Amino acid sequence: MPNTGVTAAKGFRAAGVTAGIKASGTPDLALVVNDGPSLAAAGVFTANRVKAAPVLWSQQVLKGGQVSAVVLNSGGANACTGPAGFQDTHATAEKVAAELDLNAGEVAVASTGLIGVRLPMDILLPGVTLAAQQLSETGGEAAAIAIKTTDTVHKTAQFTSPAGWTVGGMAKGAGMLAPSLATMLVVLTTDADLDCAALDAALRGATRTTFDRIDSDGCMSTNDTVLLLASGATGITPDRAEFAEAVRTVSADLARQLIGDAEGASKDIRIDVTGAATEDEAVEVARTISRNNLLKCAIHGEDPNWGRVLSAIGTTSAAFDPDRLDVAINGVWVCKDGGVGEDRELVDMKARDVVITANLNAGTANASLWTNDLTADYVHENSAYSS
Amino acid sequence: MPNTGVTAAKGFRAAGVTAGIKASGTPDLALVVNDGPSLAAAGVFTANRVKAAPVLWSQQVLKGGQVSAVVLNSGGANACTGPAGFQDTHATAEKVAAELDLNAGEVAVASTGLIGVRLPMDILLPGVTLAAQQLSETGGEAAAIAIKTTDTVHKTAQFTSPAGWTVGGMAKGAGMLAPSLATMLVVLTTDADLDCAALDAALRGATRTTFDRIDSDGCMSTNDTVLLLASGATGITPDRAEFAEAVRTVSADLARQLIGDAEGASKDIRIDVTGAATEDEAVEVARTISRNNLLKCAIHGEDPNWGRVLSAIGTTSAAFDPDRLDVAINGVWVCKDGGVGEDRELVDMKARDVVITANLNAGTANASLWTNDLTADYVHENSAYSS
Repeated sequence: MPNTGVTAAKGFRAAGVTAGIKASGTPDLALVVNDGPSLAAAGVFTANRVKAAPVLWSQQVLKGGQVSAVVLNSGGANACTGPAGFQDTHATAEKVAAELDLNAGEVAVASTGLIGVRLPMDILLPGVTLAAQQLSETGGEAAAIAIKTTDTVHKTAQFTSPAGWTVGGMAKGAGMLAPSLATMLVVLTTDADLDCAALDAALRGATRTTFDRIDSDGCMSTNDTVLLLASGATGITPDRAEFAEAVRTVSADLARQLIGDAEGASKDIRIDVTGAATEDEAVEVARTISRNNLLKCAIHGEDPNWGRVLSAIGTTSAAFDPDRLDVAINGVWVCKDGGVGEDRELVDMKARDVVITANLNAGTANASLWTNDLTADYVHENSAYSS
Repeated sequence: MPNTGVTAAKGFRAAGVTAGIKASGTPDLALVVNDGPSLAAAGVFTANRVKAAPVLWSQQVLKGGQVSAVVLNSGGANACTGPAGFQDTHATAEKVAAELDLNAGEVAVASTGLIGVRLPMDILLPGVTLAAQQLSETGGEAAAIAIKTTDTVHKTAQFTSPAGWTVGGMAKGAGMLAPSLATMLVVLTTDADLDCAALDAALRGATRTTFDRIDSDGCMSTNDTVLLLASGATGITPDRAEFAEAVRTVSADLARQLIGDAEGASKDIRIDVTGAATEDEAVEVARTISRNNLLKCAIHGEDPNWGRVLSAIGTTSAAFDPDRLDVAINGVWVCKDGGVGEDRELVDMKARDVVITANLNAGTANASLWTNDLTADYVHENSAYSS
């Protein structure tokens, strides 16, 4: 296997194994270990107020600013499982710590799968032992494979600076299009040497315009977790802006892979909102458009139905004049000044990629957001999962 | 035909005709006339900031507090049609006024159909003449039929008080499940004698807990219109509370018919939120649950997936403790204290009606909201409309 993902940067080992949590018999447990010398780390978590046990645990771990290992499982979200579920997460961290002689308070945990079901700890804990035995400096790909759920491909990305330091990472999640299986879990690693405050700033800056700008079906998971671990193994402390840009590049790559692998989707849709009064308003408008089921169905049907875009914009609080809205679909301005523009017959929607541009003509701020179409496959996928 | 809908109350005539606006050749133009002696009226309109021309026109008409006639067409929304579209609406009102010797400023207009397309005025205006010729004191049913779009049945309701006054009405809209065709248009009539302030209070009170509590797919139309016209023909001025309750009863009946006829739906879902700190928070939670695509798919699959309900609640700003949330599906408390409750196998979801109860355990306020499941038929219906 090529050295990729979380082991692309020096100072990390990883493994992905089949513990047996998933009935399918595919790999379901991943372990990422930071061999240092630094253990600095940062994390961002779901904004959902109903948080899974591993999120509550890992938020505590990250408060210390140090992470020596991350253990991730598919096959169960460990969400809405009460105090017993939290104890399961704690026991998992303790098991990793015991196997690797680490401090359990520095072991982050991430889980994905069905909500409201306890994890099979008698299966999971031996899986941790197996993963610890298989840790390897080229284990990044195996780890990325083990966190897949409905993902059709595993997702890794990496960037190496001319100075020699690297940012790499792995992600799972099918763009939240089948989110009972498709919580977004991301682990980024770097061999640059930065403190946890610098990592936190870079990570928050990157997620704001990448992972936070993909919105497949508007549903927010209880388990979303994005971690950034620095080993400092190169001994190089890069310029902060340069490092932040590298984290953003790798995050954007992974985010694009997530939305491109959305279960049931037949179109990848980029929504560009321009001419907004503020960036926040541009994001609000883009997100509202991205969550409009009628528009998502129309795009599925290759129907350049710009009326859907205008009705979606009309429900936002952004500054705009309804008579000055312009909308383009794949570059054809089908709506000008809030009314009929260029001939809709000119719009070619055969390709998988679709770009919707909405100009609010109310300012100079912009934002882009990625989503998918709504398909019968999405309905089938999500109506036949837990039963 | 039985005397029903908008002509159930005395003092009204109505008609429904085939003007030829719709290619299907089905009735597409309705006319409702108030013969008085009172012309008092009230109206509520879409909150969408992108409003169709007939909405902008009728809002102006209602400011005067008097409506002598309402003309409604299916086959075209006249939304996003610019100043020319507004002139079309104006011309329609003028035509009604000329045919019936009325003041055009007292003629309300409502339209439903595709956005961004001009109405065929050469067809519509002769249709007004035809409708004016066919006005009848038993025309309520014909009018209700003429405003259908994807509705499979026409919708009327009426209530007569022991004192002898009546509230009747008609509605169209397929619960916004196929909203390019399914804007909600409602006309209520009464032969009680009340001024426009009393009508406005009764109408706003009724819509707040009926038409505003159905949310099929979260998409808000540019054309939603609900009107209440009083002829005063009985000469009776009822107790305001009694009248308000009658308007609410008829509105609830029509709202239930709308959601029950939602295109593509296989389940009618009532969401009861209890134990909220405020009614507004109860509505926020119910609406957020009703818009969760994953839950709507799960219900379609007869899967009592309460984890979806909790993740939806977690995205609201309502007061609650995640560890004190209780959720029942069809009366089985599958989630207790934020975790696993009664056995999900006990939940019977075979019937079309599904009730989801979420107790926030944070107060004493309640709210109910109606929605539908998300189905492949919804996707098919809405991916193949305007193309």
